[in-house]
Amino acid sequence: MHPKATPPELLLEDEALRDGLQVEARIFSLEEKLHLFRLMRNAGVKRIQVGAFVHSRIIPQMADTDELVRTIGKQDATVVSALILNDKGLERALDCGVSHLSMSVSMSDTHSRKNARKPAAEALASMTRLIGDALKSGLDVRAGLQCVFGCIYEGRISEDAVLRATEKMVATGVKEINLADTTGMASPLAIRKMVTHVQDAFPGIRISLHLHDTRGLGLANMFAGYEAGVRSFDTCTAGLGGCPFVKGAAGNVPTEDAVNLFESMGIATGIDLAALCEAVDYLETTLVRPLPGRMRRVFVHSQEQGDVRETSKQNPG
Amino acid sequence: MHPKATPPELLLEDEALRDGLQVEARIFSLEEKLHLFRLMRNAGVKRIQVGAFVHSRIIPQMADTDELVRTIGKQDATVVSALILNDKGLERALDCGVSHLSMSVSMSDTHSRKNARKPAAEALASMTRLIGDALKSGLDVRAGLQCVFGCIYEGRISEDAVLRATEKMVATGVKEINLADTTGMASPLAIRKMVTHVQDAFPGIRISLHLHDTRGLGLANMFAGYEAGVRSFDTCTAGLGGCPFVKGAAGNVPTEDAVNLFESMGIATGIDLAALCEAVDYLETTLVRPLPGRMRRVFVHSQEQGDVRETSKQNPG
Repeated sequence: MHPKATPPELLLEDEALRDGLQVEARIFSLEEKLHLFRLMRNAGVKRIQVGAFVHSRIIPQMADTDELVRTIGKQDATVVSALILNDKGLERALDCGVSHLSMSVSMSDTHSRKNARKPAAEALASMTRLIGDALKSGLDVRAGLQCVFGCIYEGRISEDAVLRATEKMVATGVKEINLADTTGMASPLAIRKMVTHVQDAFPGIRISLHLHDTRGLGLANMFAGYEAGVRSFDTCTAGLGGCPFVKGAAGNVPTEDAVNLFESMGIATGIDLAALCEAVDYLETTLVRPLPGRMRRVFVHSQEQGDVRETSKQNPG
Repeated sequence: MHPKATPPELLLEDEALRDGLQVEARIFSLEEKLHLFRLMRNAGVKRIQVGAFVHSRIIPQMADTDELVRTIGKQDATVVSALILNDKGLERALDCGVSHLSMSVSMSDTHSRKNARKPAAEALASMTRLIGDALKSGLDVRAGLQCVFGCIYEGRISEDAVLRATEKMVATGVKEINLADTTGMASPLAIRKMVTHVQDAFPGIRISLHLHDTRGLGLANMFAGYEAGVRSFDTCTAGLGGCPFVKGAAGNVPTEDAVNLFESMGIATGIDLAALCEAVDYLETTLVRPLPGRMRRVFVHSQEQGDVRETSKQNPG
């Protein structure tokens, strides 16, 4: 099932089932979500965010997260994760037995008021309390900060503010901090600077990056993050995510393209590109449109040519 | 006409009129090419490759290159460049008074046989002779190597072979060597390694990079090249180029997205993003399809929101 023997040097967390499907008009059935989960798991994805425990009236796409988590059950080699926003979400997460949670707030006050209906400071205070509760319940938690690299409403976010928010998150006992470029406004140098500062200030904490590809810089920012020491990245199979009304412009970094970035530099991801392309193919077929990821087309094209060199192992550094 | 006062720290050479239009089924008229040239020049593009002196039966899209160069005439702030392959091309280039030439050969024997109908060694020998002739005629020449970072037929290309070919090019007296990732197979680490080796071996030579975005790594490779010391890059407005039959998969790095990459890190390109987006808009309207570049959509979207911060100057490193 997991074709590569080399232990992966980094963790790609696939969020297509959550950050991807939550913005699709088409609501995937439980069976379809399970099928996609299995394709990604069988390709070797080690952590999969499968849904969000949020109100089904607000995000109907995520309404069956409880049932999905129960049906998936305990996995040997894949961590099943979900997103929560509040006490009700934590209750549901505990009820259905999910083992890992993603819990985040925005660094932008305007974005926080729009997205979480709370000022940023208030959202941070209630989220740190909730993270404490989740950790006490024995759950593994990843804390996150949104709009770290800029906000379309507020412009640049100060590094000091990010460090102060990280400090409050770290005080809960959480061991992983996710820094999100929610608006796709980061540059490679901004990534390097912020990651270096957060690492220096909190050396025991694992940093992960959540990068949107709005301006085409997702993979460049991922490379800059890797070189700065980051070993965990969020991705979405096929490049799903963001706003479906801006065609091809705002999704997450496609998992298959991230796999190619790293494997082409000799860095093991533990993910089999050919197997993952089946998940991309399934999504493009189901959503009936070409999706932003590049590697499935490269892969199909190279197979048509019978060119065995055109795989994820091609062209090492 | 050139809105930014800061002298640009790097050179983006736009090749949309040549590498872009040569693969489009729709043949642009002389007037349309002139319009596109003016939009790019007015945006501040400092070198524009406007066409190729090749046989009109083989590439009919480039048939009016002589007339185009004559009509454009001498420009104050923009170098007008064209591509040639043989003696006949050099004769035409001299006749119409173009001032800069791009002359390249492939590092892959198979690719060279298919593309130039000659083995790579033979192509290199005749091209160095032709470069010598062009330099003697007083023309400014950029020598280039194709498939430097891999070939879909031959796989990886050895660095030694690239260094030997560069040595032969440099012996002609040429001062700029263009290294092309013709197949989009480069990785950021491969770029860094190759650029460092060529720079170390030929310290007086200006290196430029020609990057295809087949696997989505164009901007990541450009960033790696910049950090390794490269200050000249080829781009195509709107991300034209490559194979038009693989949708959105194989074009050059879009000029507007390269401008955003650099300006967002505080590196001046001398190009005004808003003005350049008019050229993107013209190409999308004329070709009647969305093109790969991201920044026009980001720009239009931010203007609709009345959000003045969302310009190329947003979010400095």
